[in-house]
Order: sequence, then structure tokens, then C-alpha cells
Amino acid sequence: MNYCSACAAPVELRIPEGDNLPRHVCGSCNTIHYTNPKIVVGCIPEWQDTILMCRRAIEPRYGFWTLPAGFLEDHETTIEGAARETREEALADVEISELYTLINLPQINQVYVMFRGSLRERQFGPGEESLEVRLCREEDVPWDQIAFPVVDQTLKLYFRDRRRGRFGTYAGDITRPADKWKDYQVRFLNGAGG
Amino acid sequence: MNYCSACAAPVELRIPEGDNLPRHVCGSCNTIHYTNPKIVVGCIPEWQDTILMCRRAIEPRYGFWTLPAGFLEDHETTIEGAARETREEALADVEISELYTLINLPQINQVYVMFRGSLRERQFGPGEESLEVRLCREEDVPWDQIAFPVVDQTLKLYFRDRRRGRFGTYAGDITRPADKWKDYQVRFLNGAGG
Repeated sequence: MNYCSACAAPVELRIPEGDNLPRHVCGSCNTIHYTNPKIVVGCIPEWQDTILMCRRAIEPRYGFWTLPAGFLEDHETTIEGAARETREEALADVEISELYTLINLPQINQVYVMFRGSLRERQFGPGEESLEVRLCREEDVPWDQIAFPVVDQTLKLYFRDRRRGRFGTYAGDITRPADKWKDYQVRFLNGAGG
Repeated sequence: MNYCSACAAPVELRIPEGDNLPRHVCGSCNTIHYTNPKIVVGCIPEWQDTILMCRRAIEPRYGFWTLPAGFLEDHETTIEGAARETREEALADVEISELYTLINLPQINQVYVMFRGSLRERQFGPGEESLEVRLCREEDVPWDQIAFPVVDQTLKLYFRDRRRGRFGTYAGDITRPADKWKDYQVRFLNGAGG
């Protein structure tokens, strides 16, 4: 951020009075420009003993498998956003049923909010951001081609819960050194996951 | 938003190619300026059969009672943010234990993420944004002086769960017509709450 979006004057990075973190402050109109982490919303769309997965048609991780998810829009609820992303990426109509995981990704300034949902009918297909969309049983999940650790962790919890016949809700963090794909660390509250 | 924060040229509101919502787009450098809902994080700080509540020293709702909560900062996890807000507003050291409520407030473009937490010691006091901080049993909660519906709903679920001896995790929406304080509607997934 270089300029004030209200008045076009240059901004400076400084700690405003009564605050304790540096912010972009306009030198002319004194507007403080706060920035905050973004929410990514998505879901695990369920159909009988399968879930719907999407193969990415966009970077990052082109060609890898994921769950429908994307940035929450202004004035949208996380529940609406999760259903919208499922429509857009998998051309599927889902009823969101439960909150499943809330996972912080502080390095990239995102908070993932993933729900469970039920497909209203067995109808789906690749949206613009997907190469392919497929119903997967646990044994069909392409575990070595999952796009992101947050998806991998959510799916591992999900199938463990399904085997034991009881679903929880999990909150935790995935942290990793910059650019070290394999070296990420996972920590859930109360020792859930692994 | 009037001007581009990257280059100071005027922005226009239009739907970028391949998108389906209007965004602020720079007429000069073509930067798309996305905006998104903000996350508010907080907790219910527990001490034996009481919880810690704060009386607000700031607007909105000066003088009304709330739980420690505030905007999540860049590169902070929701768990860290909830503990930080408790330190700042109640001068108390809390260990975050479980995710409790995720509540969408689409009218004001916020998502509240509230945890349960345990005070590490019986020590607290009013931070700069609080007039007063107090340990409350259920019967001590000033129900007619609660600052926000999201706090009221979270506390109602909490004491119901505590009475029945089992805590869940709840996701839902609070919606209301602009400026109609009393007319809000509450809807949780799976019919939780009330």
C-alpha cells in the first residue's frame, strides 16, 4: 500500500496513537487503513458413502485435488459462501449441515472454515476452475495428489470420524516455514487430529 | 474507495473479466482491490463456576457488558487473537481450550469466532477499553445490559450447555434490518440455540 484510497495522498507506516501495531496511515486525511486475514470457506459435499472432490484448473496447484472452497465475499455468510463455492467449482447443489474445521494459516494470512454438506441430488460437473469433479469413497481419494495441507488434514479427520461413526468440530493451526511444502506443522486444540 | 492504493489513480467499480461481482479496479495499473468480511475473535474466559465479563469503555455500546473480543490481526491465528484480546481488555491470561461459536453478521460484514478458555490464575482487571471486569456466575450475568446479540446468543448457549454438562460447537447467523436493534433473527445450523 503506497497511497490513501480515500484521498490519494501518500500513506506512511506508523503506530497510531492508542494502538500498538504499525498501520498504513494517510499523511493528509489521517485515515487509518487496517488490513486483516481473509476467510476461505468451503465444504465436504457428501453423497451416500462418497464425497465430491475437484481437480484444480487454476494455479496454484494446477491439476491437484481439492474440496470446493474460496474467498468469502462481502456481506455473505460463511454458510452461503461454502454453498456458492460448491455451485461454482463443482456445479453441485449442497445443503450445508455442520461446521467441521476451522484452520488458521497464519503465514498466508488466511483462516479456512470448512463445513460438511449434503448433495441435494447426484448431479455435478467441472466449473470453470475445475478440470474434473469426482465422487470418491475413502479408498478412491488421491492422497498423494491433494492440493493443500488444509484439505489433506480436513479429509483425514473426516474419514477417521466417519469410521468411528461420530463427527466432531475441530479448530487448529497449520504453520510452515516459507516455501517448505513438506515441512508443515499441524496443531489442533485438545490434541484432535494428527 | 476512490483511489488506487498502489498507484493513486482513480478506481472504478466494475466486474472484472472472468468474475461475477463488481470490484474496485484501477483505471491505470489495473489492480483489482478485493474487500472481504472481517473476523472478530474472542473467548469465554472460565474460572471455576464463573466466567469473566467486561463492561465497555468505548463506543459502540459504551457501558454495556461483553466478552473479550476484537478484530483478528494480520498473520495472527484466531486462537492467538482470542487470547490477546483477553489480555488487552481484561488483563487476564487465558488458555484457549475449544472453539465454541462461529456466528456470521452479514449486515456488518463480520464473522465472530468465539472460543472457550480457562483463566490460568484468578487475576484480571479493566484494560483500556473496559470500565470494569467481573467474574459472573450464571445468575450474575447482566442479561438486560449485554452489548451485542452475538454475545447474548453465545452466553445463552454456553449456560445451557453447562447445565446439561456437555459443550457443543455452534455455527449460525444473526441477521437484522438496519438499525433495528430488537428485531434480529438467529439461525444456527441443525437447529441449535434459540
